[in-house]
Amino acid sequence: MKNESLFSFTYGMYAIGVTDGKHPSASIVNTVSQVSNHPNLLTVSIHRSSYSYACIHKNGLFTVSVLSEDTSGAVIGALGLTSGRSSRKLDNIRYKMLREGVPVIRENSCCWFLCKVIDSMETPSYTVFLAKVLAGSDRVVGTPMTYSYYRNVIKGSAPRNAPTYQEPTPDRSNSDGEAFACTVCGYLYHDAITPFEELPEDWACPICGATKSAFVRQTAEI
Amino acid sequence: MKNESLFSFTYGMYAIGVTDGKHPSASIVNTVSQVSNHPNLLTVSIHRSSYSYACIHKNGLFTVSVLSEDTSGAVIGALGLTSGRSSRKLDNIRYKMLREGVPVIRENSCCWFLCKVIDSMETPSYTVFLAKVLAGSDRVVGTPMTYSYYRNVIKGSAPRNAPTYQEPTPDRSNSDGEAFACTVCGYLYHDAITPFEELPEDWACPICGATKSAFVRQTAEI
Repeated sequence: MKNESLFSFTYGMYAIGVTDGKHPSASIVNTVSQVSNHPNLLTVSIHRSSYSYACIHKNGLFTVSVLSEDTSGAVIGALGLTSGRSSRKLDNIRYKMLREGVPVIRENSCCWFLCKVIDSMETPSYTVFLAKVLAGSDRVVGTPMTYSYYRNVIKGSAPRNAPTYQEPTPDRSNSDGEAFACTVCGYLYHDAITPFEELPEDWACPICGATKSAFVRQTAEI
Repeated sequence: MKNESLFSFTYGMYAIGVTDGKHPSASIVNTVSQVSNHPNLLTVSIHRSSYSYACIHKNGLFTVSVLSEDTSGAVIGALGLTSGRSSRKLDNIRYKMLREGVPVIRENSCCWFLCKVIDSMETPSYTVFLAKVLAGSDRVVGTPMTYSYYRNVIKGSAPRNAPTYQEPTPDRSNSDGEAFACTVCGYLYHDAITPFEELPEDWACPICGATKSAFVRQTAEI
């Protein structure tokens, strides 16, 4: 069996809103799944090295904002390419603070849900949280973004007019063309400005939250 | 909050292969999600009243076949519209028996995985199984079917040339036009031959496995 077969699972794109008690933060995941409707329960898998995990583990609250096809790659990059430990990820992101102190993302998201953890399962690297939906938006705006859409249409990179876009420098943009693929979700990291090896150790896959160790070197053909 | 907002979650379409120790069976779910890659772990939510649950609970083994856009609505109907307790659902379905005794579906499925349960979480109606992927196919064929594709393109009904298709009778096909919507996944049951009330009590939603009690009456406009 090749691990790539697991890429055939279908996922959406979601922003998980959290708080450490002082500052709101958010990250990108694709592993949100409804479990039942009476009561409304869902699961989400979070890497235990992530800042989102630390926040959820601390206070048991998080939000899910369903990203739409109109949510820009820049927003996804801003929330997914850095750690909430080292940066205020929401500084340039439109969001709404719920009275519970957790943020919901307003960058063309379809809808949002406030969730409270009621159970969890541990795996070697990830925790699967089971959570009850306490509240949510009344309507859905736009078309939910699928992970496939993010990879094939948005190309998983920030657009030129986005705050996270970085102009390639000529001396490095045509270097060895190396790319690194996430073995969990297939996300391809390929940045001529910041080689993969120079990303911070707590950098996580912007799509599924996998750590750097989950990435494998590839020869990019892009 | 309206429950319909939860329909904005993105799902794939999967056949869960099981065995009761004597006969193989399978059902349709949309709640499969990868959790980690070292080891390869996934979660799936199964309604505890379902026959699939009874089999998985008994022997801890199941398969996941990823349905493709070429998998016919008839196959989905055959696996999803009846219970494995009362019928041999695989009688008219192409499948392959793994040596472990569980079937994988070969009706234009993209790929398959053999899974062993290692943990679980209980909710009032559903069990969330955490399972290790023991084996799987080496390649992916076709385009994975999304639940959205099933609803919007396949229209969630069996085609005329399918074994599960039933010719409407004139005296009932234009009756009161009532339809019943699944409040978990949005699947619309609308069959002029078999009114919703006449479905067996252990009938489950062909998409998400919800029981009849999860359905609400709607005035169909189709």
